[in-house]
Amino acid sequence: MTKLAAFQSEWLPKIEQQLKQDLAVASRDSDFSEMMAYAVLNGGKRLRPMLTLAVVVSFGQKITPSILKVATAVEWVHAYSLVHDDLPAMDNDLFRRGKPSVHAQYGEAEAILVGDALLTGAFHVVSSANSTDTENENIAAEELLLLSQMLSYQAGAFGMVIGQVGDMKNHRSEAKNDVNWLLNDVYAPKTAALLGFSAIAGSRLSHLNSVADNCEIAISTTNSALLTFGTDFGMAFQIQDDLDDFDQDNVEKITSLPHLIGIKAASEKRDEYLTHARQTLTDLATQNLTFDRTLLDDFLNFIGDDI
Amino acid sequence: MTKLAAFQSEWLPKIEQQLKQDLAVASRDSDFSEMMAYAVLNGGKRLRPMLTLAVVVSFGQKITPSILKVATAVEWVHAYSLVHDDLPAMDNDLFRRGKPSVHAQYGEAEAILVGDALLTGAFHVVSSANSTDTENENIAAEELLLLSQMLSYQAGAFGMVIGQVGDMKNHRSEAKNDVNWLLNDVYAPKTAALLGFSAIAGSRLSHLNSVADNCEIAISTTNSALLTFGTDFGMAFQIQDDLDDFDQDNVEKITSLPHLIGIKAASEKRDEYLTHARQTLTDLATQNLTFDRTLLDDFLNFIGDDI
Repeated sequence: MTKLAAFQSEWLPKIEQQLKQDLAVASRDSDFSEMMAYAVLNGGKRLRPMLTLAVVVSFGQKITPSILKVATAVEWVHAYSLVHDDLPAMDNDLFRRGKPSVHAQYGEAEAILVGDALLTGAFHVVSSANSTDTENENIAAEELLLLSQMLSYQAGAFGMVIGQVGDMKNHRSEAKNDVNWLLNDVYAPKTAALLGFSAIAGSRLSHLNSVADNCEIAISTTNSALLTFGTDFGMAFQIQDDLDDFDQDNVEKITSLPHLIGIKAASEKRDEYLTHARQTLTDLATQNLTFDRTLLDDFLNFIGDDI
Repeated sequence: MTKLAAFQSEWLPKIEQQLKQDLAVASRDSDFSEMMAYAVLNGGKRLRPMLTLAVVVSFGQKITPSILKVATAVEWVHAYSLVHDDLPAMDNDLFRRGKPSVHAQYGEAEAILVGDALLTGAFHVVSSANSTDTENENIAAEELLLLSQMLSYQAGAFGMVIGQVGDMKNHRSEAKNDVNWLLNDVYAPKTAALLGFSAIAGSRLSHLNSVADNCEIAISTTNSALLTFGTDFGMAFQIQDDLDDFDQDNVEKITSLPHLIGIKAASEKRDEYLTHARQTLTDLATQNLTFDRTLLDDFLNFIGDDI
């Protein structure tokens, strides 16, 4: 059993429980709470919150109830993005993970509103993360506010939303047939931005008590390194996803990286990101004696496998 | 000139300037920033941020740059809600304030994404409200985090979103023909929740420096009173809106309050909310010697007029 598999078997049920618990009281209308839960509780692997928690553990820190809760906020954002991406005006997907997509199940207007509610709810999760905790394990308000700011940046018109704008052009065959455009203006914001958030959030949450002034620069460097790690991981993850969907994308005439530069070159590009991510872990391990890279290495090793 | 008219002529341009400035850098893609700006900068009266600022002034407090910025966040939320409400799957409106609605102008997928970006951006506005300020006028992180929490509550599946779910039933003639349902499950969340937020935000922002322990209960009571005031104002505002749209709603077969109980009874209901809101101001003026009710009275007096 890899370290990641052991970590998953411990923390996936806890992430699910946190999501379930918050979604059960997510709306004043229980029918609508159920629709929101339908969109989120669909057997996903919770890659994004899992990455946040893995980073915390890699720095030898304890996952408190507040940290667990704040780590799940990004999953609300991810879930809303899938609901909206599946809409008829977007990718027009009737199925998601073998079940009817939200609009197929409940109607288009409801799917728009469920997505809106999940996105809004994500920020409620961040701002109320301390509620389940004993006071001495509370996360400082300054920290939660900064995480809220980073999440809105990476999820909004500097990140995920703008990536979807680019992806729509791909779906409409308006792609620019330009590798740099595809990597920097579609893959980076659409997929890597949220995973970058997950990783830097984990780093920030690992250094809550390191307030000594002489640590500030070191911590800031570490946080940046984790953002880079999460972003590289996200890029590799997206390219692998496109390699897996190559035949399907052919049918739908979507121009993904393998279509643009070939399967071999796309695989090499994926490996470049993985190599860079491993180098970041090496640098981190050199600079931080408390940092254990094993778990994050497993994330990289499983790219292409079912994580 | 009423006090409100003078207040508007001073602060409306400043609110517009703040919105314009933040929207100009709202996306990494300047075409998309323009779409977001198109959705927001449409000649609206900025009722919601204006209410927040009016409350601050009513308590004799200064409107700092941070307070101005945080007050505009609710306008991003309001604007996103109009973009999504206008979508073909929702109210299917091709025009908004005499201009093509966002989806009519840019396409349906873009309108969904512009709405998503504005909603996400609202939380960035709250979390970065201090950036323009001198440090000694910064709003405490605890306060901004709490405003973010309240905004997500009032805008999401406990507030505005769930009101739109109810309103969709009205548009589809699935209304329950029940006055209490219409008032409590549609009007209150759809319209009054956001105005309630605006008012309580103004109250909270007026008491940033009142940290003495013996003030806590008094401040909490004052904040609640402003939430009540904003909610009553919102209810009266919505009923007046329905009275104004009576003939149009007839054509579209939308069941609003005047259709359910008649124009006379609906006008009386509106006046009940206004009377209650005025009583709240009377109570506030009795308890708070620094509180000047004139400006907020003007908000109530202008219901039905063009504010």
